[in-house]
Amino acid sequence: MSFETNEYFDGNVTSIAFQSETLPATVGVMEVGEYTFDAGAKEYMTVVSGNLTIQFPGYPEWTTFNAGETFEVPANTSFNVKVTVQTAYLCLYEK
Amino acid sequence: MSFETNEYFDGNVTSIAFQSETLPATVGVMEVGEYTFDAGAKEYMTVVSGNLTIQFPGYPEWTTFNAGETFEVPANTSFNVKVTVQTAYLCLYEK
Repeated sequence: MSFETNEYFDGNVTSIAFQSETLPATVGVMEVGEYTFDAGAKEYMTVVSGNLTIQFPGYPEWTTFNAGETFEVPANTSFNVKVTVQTAYLCLYEK
Repeated sequence: MSFETNEYFDGNVTSIAFQSETLPATVGVMEVGEYTFDAGAKEYMTVVSGNLTIQFPGYPEWTTFNAGETFEVPANTSFNVKVTVQTAYLCLYEK
């Protein structure tokens, strides 16, 4: 048995896919940097270690989420992420 | 740049190494099963999703830790883990 791992942005974002008790999920790590993610399904993203500063499309402001905090990403949107320390996250994907 | 990923127990435990703001760390996922881990350094383990039931050496009882809960593993010990659902964890390693 092997979990599926994926790399994005030249390996600056790496994740492991698994099945949580409720929804398909990934845990992953982001290197310091700025990224734009495209969300297909609605996502629930929780910061596990470090912090993520997020800008949602159409909103000028950036919001920082710290370890233990969760934000929702609407389906079929893209969002910008600034990462200032190596950061671990949990992401649940609405089916 | 690429994060280091590691597989243990034939891939039933898979982790990604990173540097947290305080200590070297991993996030990982465990498949349903029973495992014995050997801790070199003192570790702080936090359940991110799912749950881990732990038996420390010399203690007959098992203790279940749920998402958001943390337990300490003394240096140079081994401990038993029972996993009943695919479970994600964060581990910080004391230097």
